[in-house]
Amino acid sequence: MPPSSTIPTVPIESAALRGIRGSAIRDLLAVTEQPEVLSLAGGLPATDLIPSDRIADAAARTIGRPDALQYTTSRGVSLCRDVVANIEAVDPDRILLTHGSQQALSLLAQALVDPGDVVVVDDPVYVGALQAFQCVRAEIVALPITRNGTNVGELSRLLERGVRPRIVHTVSNFHNPSGVTASTETRTGLADLAETYGFWIVEDDPYGRLAFDGAPTSPIPGERTIRLGSASKTLAPALRVGWLNAPPAVVALVERLKQSADLCGSTLNQLMVADLLADTEWFDAHIDTIASAYSLRAHALTSALDDEFGDSVEYTSPTGGMFCWVRLPGVDTSELLSVALSYGVAFVPGSAFAVDADLGDSARLSFATLQPDALREAVRRLRTATDDVVRLRKSPDAR
Amino acid sequence: MPPSSTIPTVPIESAALRGIRGSAIRDLLAVTEQPEVLSLAGGLPATDLIPSDRIADAAARTIGRPDALQYTTSRGVSLCRDVVANIEAVDPDRILLTHGSQQALSLLAQALVDPGDVVVVDDPVYVGALQAFQCVRAEIVALPITRNGTNVGELSRLLERGVRPRIVHTVSNFHNPSGVTASTETRTGLADLAETYGFWIVEDDPYGRLAFDGAPTSPIPGERTIRLGSASKTLAPALRVGWLNAPPAVVALVERLKQSADLCGSTLNQLMVADLLADTEWFDAHIDTIASAYSLRAHALTSALDDEFGDSVEYTSPTGGMFCWVRLPGVDTSELLSVALSYGVAFVPGSAFAVDADLGDSARLSFATLQPDALREAVRRLRTATDDVVRLRKSPDAR
Repeated sequence: MPPSSTIPTVPIESAALRGIRGSAIRDLLAVTEQPEVLSLAGGLPATDLIPSDRIADAAARTIGRPDALQYTTSRGVSLCRDVVANIEAVDPDRILLTHGSQQALSLLAQALVDPGDVVVVDDPVYVGALQAFQCVRAEIVALPITRNGTNVGELSRLLERGVRPRIVHTVSNFHNPSGVTASTETRTGLADLAETYGFWIVEDDPYGRLAFDGAPTSPIPGERTIRLGSASKTLAPALRVGWLNAPPAVVALVERLKQSADLCGSTLNQLMVADLLADTEWFDAHIDTIASAYSLRAHALTSALDDEFGDSVEYTSPTGGMFCWVRLPGVDTSELLSVALSYGVAFVPGSAFAVDADLGDSARLSFATLQPDALREAVRRLRTATDDVVRLRKSPDAR
Repeated sequence: MPPSSTIPTVPIESAALRGIRGSAIRDLLAVTEQPEVLSLAGGLPATDLIPSDRIADAAARTIGRPDALQYTTSRGVSLCRDVVANIEAVDPDRILLTHGSQQALSLLAQALVDPGDVVVVDDPVYVGALQAFQCVRAEIVALPITRNGTNVGELSRLLERGVRPRIVHTVSNFHNPSGVTASTETRTGLADLAETYGFWIVEDDPYGRLAFDGAPTSPIPGERTIRLGSASKTLAPALRVGWLNAPPAVVALVERLKQSADLCGSTLNQLMVADLLADTEWFDAHIDTIASAYSLRAHALTSALDDEFGDSVEYTSPTGGMFCWVRLPGVDTSELLSVALSYGVAFVPGSAFAVDADLGDSARLSFATLQPDALREAVRRLRTATDDVVRLRKSPDAR
């Protein structure tokens, strides 16, 4: 045997891993789990709105079914695929069930993207999507998002310059983190460009059912759109059931990758989701309950922002989903966060979602998990913290 | 906009995907699901031995717990990691929970292997492991497995020739598909080589608890061993809870990849597994029940092989797990399969598990899912099919 000195020293991790940005949000969540902190930081749905009794019923009913505890196919349980196909208004051969929609992002990135291929994302970006594309060493091009969703004008110019993305990713409804929803013009514009230039649109849509006015949202049209959905924000994250709705050729590619990723999803969890989603009368009422509660909470948050910050804050009024994106001109929100934590309030600084844009004065506030009174108190603490930061900036000697 | 003729035609799938072998076994399972077929083909545990009542209790108890339906951390629920750490007799910071142990294979491949890196596997191989390593474009080197497990002699010669694997993978106990168990000499030999040459041993161990004599198996020793475990073969596949037991530095790498792969596992399913595994008196008795039943089924299969095939079959007597590997000298088992299906019996031909070895006269027979009488009938049908194949080979004109 050779002496060990002849063995080359290699980095422990693969090259793929070295390209991934860690999630500042996830690291932050450890801090915000302290009970005295009012957290506007999380991306969790409200625990108090998770229908645990109805889920317990579904579990009890499902475990007794034959084969509920066995393996299923890599595409997922037929019954659940049929229910999802019905919701998506497509044929079941377009549906593959995933372990949360994050797995759909990860498998699509592996299926469709080679190292160096361009992937276009919004700036600010959903960090989970960024990580999935970084993991396959995509070249990320981030376009500043507009009030009408993905920046179709900038995308057109990029394409005209000869850039050829494989994928354009967006969270189309109640965008995480910016809160905006793609307009009809954005949707048709994206679909036209995708058709002309041959890229895939990945329409990531976990929040579409959570419109405050209850109005249904329209999917991005066209044959080049791959839609992702999830039960995490409407039923419960712990079910870990997401799905993709894609042309059958793409479904077949993702199916092969899912075999190697984890063989298949949970028969039990998928049957439970089928039971819950197929009970449309109950499910629609449950969605109304969540959307009404989130609407009240969003209103509590924004009126507190008006009351406490007045003209010194800019924000997009939420019309659904879980997030309000705010701008505090002149305030470094990363600096603000450490002061805010000392006052017992947490949020995610804009820089955590930035690719190229300077979002240092912005922040994502989640209104989903706190009750209105707690939201008002959180904003009061945020105001106090902001005052401290502004005062310190004006007279640094006071430090 | 340019005319569409200027858009390059690119293959739909990424290069990574083009390297993966489809699973012949999975494709086969579609055929064998017909009720009249007695299947020795599956890799499933016996449905009749899944403790569904006890699992229903665990579900009912768990859903009521606070946060049971929320997201968890990427490492998994602490309570479940603690229970697994106790079983593995290690510190919890070595444990990360995965979506079945297949996900542990897939994430380890991504974490530790760069394209072109050598990964050593057994021949025949567990196809799920092969797929995971092919997915990251590893250079696969397959060594013919011995009666004592991984071929340490061939591995030594490979290393002496200067080949430097990143990973050596094996199913150490009741190997899938070959049925063999690594001897003590194989284990210490592997550990010594790993220490000297700096590769990782991935000890894939889903079957270790299913020893027919109830004796505990010993893990492969050493600091370079990463152990994978699973609840799929002892509790239920649909729980989709597996784990890895690795040095904390490797756990940290896999954790980052798991964030991007699927954020986290199911809090609910992991809490249920914790409930079931922590009830050691019940769990040990349950393991005895499975192992006794599998032992009886294995005996029914091998005595039927003796009765029907006599000296024309060679096999390794199973001492645990779910599989019996047989050799029918002079018979092409792929050819046999199509005839066997017409007689209503299915199995997996050896070639489905072969990397470089010629295993065309071998087959994997699972004894887990059929009752003894059905196993005997399956072997009778297999004998009739074999007679047909042998007769056709001797007098091809009879076709």
